Amino acid sequence: MLDTVSPTTLIASLAANARSASRDLARTSDMQKRAALHHAAKALRKATSTILAANAVDLERGLANGLSAAMLDRLRLDPARLESVAAAVAAVADLDDPVGQVIDRATRPNGLELSRVRVPIGVIGIIYESRPNVTADAAALCVRSGNAVILRGGSEAIESNRAIHAALNEGLVAGGLPAAAVQLVPTTDRAAVGAMLAADGAIDLIIPRGGRSLVARVQAEARVPVLAHLDGVNHVFVHASANLAMAKAVVVDAKMRRTGVCGAMETLLIDRAFPHAAEVVAALAATGCALRGDAEAQRLLPGMAAASAEDWDAEYLDAIAAVAVVDGLDGALAHVAAHASGHTDAIIADDEAVAERFLREVDSAIVLWNASTQFADGGEFGLGAEIGIATGRLHARGPVALEGLTTYKWLGRGTGQVRG
Amino acid sequence: MLDTVSPTTLIASLAANARSASRDLARTSDMQKRAALHHAAKALRKATSTILAANAVDLERGLANGLSAAMLDRLRLDPARLESVAAAVAAVADLDDPVGQVIDRATRPNGLELSRVRVPIGVIGIIYESRPNVTADAAALCVRSGNAVILRGGSEAIESNRAIHAALNEGLVAGGLPAAAVQLVPTTDRAAVGAMLAADGAIDLIIPRGGRSLVARVQAEARVPVLAHLDGVNHVFVHASANLAMAKAVVVDAKMRRTGVCGAMETLLIDRAFPHAAEVVAALAATGCALRGDAEAQRLLPGMAAASAEDWDAEYLDAIAAVAVVDGLDGALAHVAAHASGHTDAIIADDEAVAERFLREVDSAIVLWNASTQFADGGEFGLGAEIGIATGRLHARGPVALEGLTTYKWLGRGTGQVRG
Repeated sequence: MLDTVSPTTLIASLAANARSASRDLARTSDMQKRAALHHAAKALRKATSTILAANAVDLERGLANGLSAAMLDRLRLDPARLESVAAAVAAVADLDDPVGQVIDRATRPNGLELSRVRVPIGVIGIIYESRPNVTADAAALCVRSGNAVILRGGSEAIESNRAIHAALNEGLVAGGLPAAAVQLVPTTDRAAVGAMLAADGAIDLIIPRGGRSLVARVQAEARVPVLAHLDGVNHVFVHASANLAMAKAVVVDAKMRRTGVCGAMETLLIDRAFPHAAEVVAALAATGCALRGDAEAQRLLPGMAAASAEDWDAEYLDAIAAVAVVDGLDGALAHVAAHASGHTDAIIADDEAVAERFLREVDSAIVLWNASTQFADGGEFGLGAEIGIATGRLHARGPVALEGLTTYKWLGRGTGQVRG
Repeated sequence: MLDTVSPTTLIASLAANARSASRDLARTSDMQKRAALHHAAKALRKATSTILAANAVDLERGLANGLSAAMLDRLRLDPARLESVAAAVAAVADLDDPVGQVIDRATRPNGLELSRVRVPIGVIGIIYESRPNVTADAAALCVRSGNAVILRGGSEAIESNRAIHAALNEGLVAGGLPAAAVQLVPTTDRAAVGAMLAADGAIDLIIPRGGRSLVARVQAEARVPVLAHLDGVNHVFVHASANLAMAKAVVVDAKMRRTGVCGAMETLLIDRAFPHAAEVVAALAATGCALRGDAEAQRLLPGMAAASAEDWDAEYLDAIAAVAVVDGLDGALAHVAAHASGHTDAIIADDEAVAERFLREVDSAIVLWNASTQFADGGEFGLGAEIGIATGRLHARGPVALEGLTTYKWLGRGTGQVRG
């Protein structure tokens, strides 16, 4: 039956339900949202066998369709993974409610009492790929912050997503929330994505979760505002004043702890005046990282490959790093300004004045002094979770969790004031 | 020569200059930005005769082209108006610098000291119509908040805008700011607007200032994020518990103080249980406001016209108001949810519980209790100025001044922390 409805009509109908649910959610108390999400976590646990059976169907179809081993691994659920999905929902339930927080307040000379209060954004669309855990993670964060959400997962995970959504929904409804608080787009028709991106006014915000091609498509097509994560071309600059042991530890962690995360270092910048440059490069190479250097960097390590122009803008997400020797802080700032993607950049330095200038002048979402770029994460930042790391400049920047899923309104309490 | 360059190339070139200037501006101290804007205010005053001569050219051409009297009035400068433009620039100079403000800070369990610090957005495009004062107002707000700005005014004001821009620029450069901090698109080719709207990544934010058709075009075409003002379909709800004198004063002010502003009331909602409904309606009618009521409202005033379905969604910006009788707070909330544009809505009530529910449940940028909707204004809200009132839900909502022209970055100061 669904196939007889146009994607535009389908999305309009989901969005209308979501708008209505969002009005109820905006009025729902902290306690009730918290309780409903705990119900949802319990319902997920109770539905373990159903969800795993659905996941087995997706996996079997994926195998038959020749999905890569990496894709199949992202798709796969097992009892431990599903338990961690449920635990994450319960953890989001216990986060502080951002809704109703007073950002600031003032009494105007005429006696009008003004305040700015956080409120939900409204209706949020999440477009994601193969990981079925996003169904629960994203729904929990949206509902906790009082938003209705429309989920559009990858077709390869449709059975898993349906089963997770059904369990979530059962829990949320048992907890007193409207059924349309969390809706899953019921079709795998790709045109539904286009309809979501075009639903300006009906959907307030789209958050894409997935690889670069998905995010780029969303950004290129969307008429709805997008909170997106693009590249993480991240730098670590080792200044002349750096402590050698710290420089080695941070550089190795920033690149190699997990090479596939967006917070991983991609380019190592070394101050020409740093006396232990060769030791830092050797430490990184010793971990199995392939290095591609400029002419001066190549002299630091026998056999280092030459970097091409593309390497300075590459997001490898792999055990590869570009290495450049730069002329002090100014050289590093110039390189970062030319090549950083505005995600996360770090300096290793003992000289506080130099570090503070780096913190001030580097225009990235996250700028770190004497710490690994791999801290770029909502959990590590104390946000309790994250819906993503925003690389745009508006609304929210860097790790985004509950606060980033809210907006505000101005409230004015008067005693009959007129402008006259 | 300019006409031989494509609009896309022209805008790319302006945007590249602006990006470079924005990096300098982001590092410019509070004191220097303040001083440079005072220089600019002085330069505007010094250039009075040049600017008025340029304005005379625009006015003469406008007359010849048959511009309406209202358009010509918006275009017209005189010594008093120009003095107020210069005074506004000086007033913006004296506002507190938002850049560098610490939004919040925390020390993580691992000792990493995290803070969120306000930074400029970067490169802002302003697209506006006939009022030449916007050239100075918008430039001052952008520069004060550390942003580079590209101004694209209406072709009917091009000579005035060029003269104002030249004076501003002379002052800002004398104050040590880069010449590309404020650039005026030098052509009246409408394709330049399209090129600005398409300059995703080169321009960080577009702010349209003008009538509904300009704003709608910008919103429909833009690939760059837009901070826009759309409709102000604003309501005043007179609850059964309202004080009669206050209700009359606020309703009359909300509608009639200035009928052409976006904060003007367009629809009056009266509680069926309010015993003095006829007196409020009579007071509004006595000011010369034309009323269009539903059947029940029509009985409150002999000869009141009947409202059509369109009246409930109309932004008259004129001495006209729609009037509906509603069933208590719930009736008012339902009407507002169905018809408000999310700009400014008010309740007049002595019953605090009722008023607080209205404040909580109405989903508009500004919600007022016992005060006129005409307070919807950055100056009245204590922001010192405003670049506009945003009716979207993301980034900034309601009156937008310096803070709304900033974003933030996360700074982390560590002692060698790794995620391990």
